[in-house]
Amino acid sequence: MMKNMWIFGRSNKVVIVVFTGVLATELLWQLYKRTRSKIPSKSINEVLFFSEESSNCRMHAVSRTPCDRSNCSVTQLRKLCAYLESAQQNLDVCMYLFSCEDLAAAIAKVFCRGVVVRIIVDGGMAENSACERRIRDFRERGIRVRMKKSEYLMHHKFAIIDRKLILTGSTNWTMQAMHGNWDNVIVSNQLALVKPFIAEFDRMWILLTTGED
Amino acid sequence: MMKNMWIFGRSNKVVIVVFTGVLATELLWQLYKRTRSKIPSKSINEVLFFSEESSNCRMHAVSRTPCDRSNCSVTQLRKLCAYLESAQQNLDVCMYLFSCEDLAAAIAKVFCRGVVVRIIVDGGMAENSACERRIRDFRERGIRVRMKKSEYLMHHKFAIIDRKLILTGSTNWTMQAMHGNWDNVIVSNQLALVKPFIAEFDRMWILLTTGED
Repeated sequence: MMKNMWIFGRSNKVVIVVFTGVLATELLWQLYKRTRSKIPSKSINEVLFFSEESSNCRMHAVSRTPCDRSNCSVTQLRKLCAYLESAQQNLDVCMYLFSCEDLAAAIAKVFCRGVVVRIIVDGGMAENSACERRIRDFRERGIRVRMKKSEYLMHHKFAIIDRKLILTGSTNWTMQAMHGNWDNVIVSNQLALVKPFIAEFDRMWILLTTGED
Repeated sequence: MMKNMWIFGRSNKVVIVVFTGVLATELLWQLYKRTRSKIPSKSINEVLFFSEESSNCRMHAVSRTPCDRSNCSVTQLRKLCAYLESAQQNLDVCMYLFSCEDLAAAIAKVFCRGVVVRIIVDGGMAENSACERRIRDFRERGIRVRMKKSEYLMHHKFAIIDRKLILTGSTNWTMQAMHGNWDNVIVSNQLALVKPFIAEFDRMWILLTTGED
């Protein structure tokens, strides 16, 4: 009887030791994978669409009240603003056409909070009065803007938030793009997508040193 | 001695049973996760950049010989063609400006192979002679093209390959975009990014039924 209990106790010990060992190995493996793959804990992959139906939402853009349309442009614009306003350390914007007041206000807001803001625009964009006003306003606030004057277009439409999240797509930051064109913006924190944009922005920023007023 | 061996043998059995059990559970868990998350077995996330430096590559575009520039436009263009030519069942293209001969040739090639090709373009694009020629050529080959005539722009620049892979970004499919502009194309098979584009293309295709000649 005593021997049986002893055997039973010993088996139990073995089970516990083995189980703890396997559990610890599994935890370490998961931890290693998390560190190794550098996958952000919360994955963000979202696509925002704008379409001609969005033009019907323009009328309630002032009140900022979203409607129940799947592509409501007011809802999409508010999402973009919220992403920009989520910046804590850095905000890099690289935009071909930039005249949208709401997005400019979001940038001004985070800049006032101490976020480091860098903006790259196309040189020819400044010929458009709405865009030119936006650039002048940024510079008057102390926000750094660099531009490219060339026969070719600085045609990117992307922003990087805290060097972790990319907003990019076909959409220029204009009222027509938000409230009429058929356009898209991808929002992603996939490192494989974010890292190349960071490298390209940094490369362009250095290259355009002479483009700063 | 015999008893010790029996105990040892029994412990060994327990270890094997527990280990096999844990291993089987782990394998089932991994299998469940793979099915549940629907992550493609081979993840594709790539960003192709075009830049003003790419204009220097235009001269060797005819020979299709890539150079060692990091953003060589011939290399990038060849990559885009290869992605298009990888289509086995479906190829959906939604493009604001489309005049690039190489990309059009890649589409014609897969269409000849029996791939179902659908193309959506902007109505105003047909006013550009280079783009108009491309559309006419597609239609003469029997490729279905639908377009949107409106005061707003059909400004998307994306393609979906086999309803699994998305190519999208700021880049129009023109020679200037490939060989001069500062532009980008994202290539991804992330379901969270691909699925919304499939839904939007299908929605537009139905909506533009009347836009087909």
